[in-house]
Amino acid sequence: MRTIDWADGAIELIDQTLLPHRLEVHRVTELQELIADIQRLAVRGAPALGVAGALGTALIARAHTTGDVLDLPSAQRDAALLREARPTAVNLSWGVDRALTRLTEGAEAVLAEALTIRDEDIAACVSMGLRGADLTRELTGKQSVNVMTICNTGSLATVERGTALGVIQTLFEQGSLTEAFPLETRPLLQGARLTAWELQRMGAPFRLLIDSAGPFLLSRGIADAVFIGADRIAANGDTANKVGSFSLALAAKHAGVPFFVVAPESTVDMRTASGADIQIEDRGTDEVAGFGGMRTAPEGITAVNPAFDVTPHELITAIITERRVVRPQLGETLAETPFGPLLP
Amino acid sequence: MRTIDWADGAIELIDQTLLPHRLEVHRVTELQELIADIQRLAVRGAPALGVAGALGTALIARAHTTGDVLDLPSAQRDAALLREARPTAVNLSWGVDRALTRLTEGAEAVLAEALTIRDEDIAACVSMGLRGADLTRELTGKQSVNVMTICNTGSLATVERGTALGVIQTLFEQGSLTEAFPLETRPLLQGARLTAWELQRMGAPFRLLIDSAGPFLLSRGIADAVFIGADRIAANGDTANKVGSFSLALAAKHAGVPFFVVAPESTVDMRTASGADIQIEDRGTDEVAGFGGMRTAPEGITAVNPAFDVTPHELITAIITERRVVRPQLGETLAETPFGPLLP
Repeated sequence: MRTIDWADGAIELIDQTLLPHRLEVHRVTELQELIADIQRLAVRGAPALGVAGALGTALIARAHTTGDVLDLPSAQRDAALLREARPTAVNLSWGVDRALTRLTEGAEAVLAEALTIRDEDIAACVSMGLRGADLTRELTGKQSVNVMTICNTGSLATVERGTALGVIQTLFEQGSLTEAFPLETRPLLQGARLTAWELQRMGAPFRLLIDSAGPFLLSRGIADAVFIGADRIAANGDTANKVGSFSLALAAKHAGVPFFVVAPESTVDMRTASGADIQIEDRGTDEVAGFGGMRTAPEGITAVNPAFDVTPHELITAIITERRVVRPQLGETLAETPFGPLLP
Repeated sequence: MRTIDWADGAIELIDQTLLPHRLEVHRVTELQELIADIQRLAVRGAPALGVAGALGTALIARAHTTGDVLDLPSAQRDAALLREARPTAVNLSWGVDRALTRLTEGAEAVLAEALTIRDEDIAACVSMGLRGADLTRELTGKQSVNVMTICNTGSLATVERGTALGVIQTLFEQGSLTEAFPLETRPLLQGARLTAWELQRMGAPFRLLIDSAGPFLLSRGIADAVFIGADRIAANGDTANKVGSFSLALAAKHAGVPFFVVAPESTVDMRTASGADIQIEDRGTDEVAGFGGMRTAPEGITAVNPAFDVTPHELITAIITERRVVRPQLGETLAETPFGPLLP
């Protein structure tokens, strides 16, 4: 089952706000629906957002085509709206922009490009999983490992297989996973709702943690490695990801365990020099002041609610993509590390 | 209004599980009720638990007195039950044991001792607030500061005024508080429910954070100092407190801002050599898998749910008690630092 796909002239996506209690596919035919779905996190996860951006651009191209004539300015105006649906995730605008390169060839060419992006995402996740599992055994010196992760970076964050959780799935399939420790990931609980659901479906052993227990339990040796995904990786390796990642990175360094960023090359943004240049989306008070629609904090308060944080590259053991492993702590850079083949 | 007190032959305590939505006082006349209230966190916070232990021992002494005759073995058996209601908090057993020292003098002597503990708690919080506010201005070099804190260490954690939040209240009263940033404190949200309620009542400026945003926002300079309470301070200064404290301590060190532990001397446990010897209570899966009766994680999962973590003394800038300031990072020890007067 795919998280997002194209079927019969529409985008079909799993509505992730209903998980783990209900598995429902939302059929999207209008741009405004897609933007709303992105903003309420019905579809989320950097790679899936890339595919959403590309498929959304295909929707736009179709909507502005009359006969054989494409209304280019209108399509570009709508593409700009889609690109801005979530500012921090580079993949969304990357997917839009890549699909747009085919715009002058017509709507079907845009759709073909979007479907290529979808297929590349599937292949990239397989490759990241294999690279990551090998590196984990190598750096920990263990054949079977305990791992910690945050947010959801599984099949629900991509098309069919995960990034960070994809490595964990690969470890599990290879008999190398002792136990996984996903963090619940406030405020929207993607870890408790989505990652726990995925781990349960794959039959992997795991126990859930509240976010702030992760750093402490690392200090007590509960995990051999930490895996996170990425929403944007700056040119110097600084990585924007779900808030809480920074805290895990600090704790991993303190505990002496490797800290891995797992993300496709499309997440690397060489035009952004460092983490200081990454805009952090603040999602407002309501998510923090309540829990699943139930108000917990007093009325009238306000919150600071950064959706992402930035982990400086010096806290990152390795950035694992589908094409290479870059190790910032060894002085390796994204600019200079050569690409390897897709695996297998 | 006091969080816990003695009135007309019974313990009266604010039922903190109902805040911030309802302010209700629970009148407790039976030991089993008190143990249940402690276990479901209707009364919580290390200093308040000390007073609860002492007043509970007064209840026990009364219950086992017939005429002038005290059934000593039964009273001691019940006191042991009360002492074990929460294992990590040293104050609970400290309060029980101190009240028990008067047991052979009869039930009224036990009650008098418990009321003395109550009055000492009130005075200690005033003194901690003054010492802490002075030290904060001294070490930050600022007349007005932004501060971060976790859990609830305010009047609701003590009798009438807080420990860590007591320092923040003192800073506010002295015109030295720019803004406070309380963490919501999963799983039971004492920060969002209780600390936010207290800050709102005192009129202090504040914004709420999810727990894992705290470390990141410290790295971005949001606060000049971090304040936590303590459930148990070992002889070497290692401090058990609400899970999440460790992560804040790591981040405070990384950000170069002072990290303060604020707790009464009764929290210091010189019989516990270090943090490695502190038993960490695991509160089970349900608190993590849901909130307020609403299930968020899939059915059938399990969680690791440590109620506390341990911050090693080398991450602590100062331990502030009612009688002294001890600075582990300067090599100062609890064993050798002399006591000063209660302030003012």
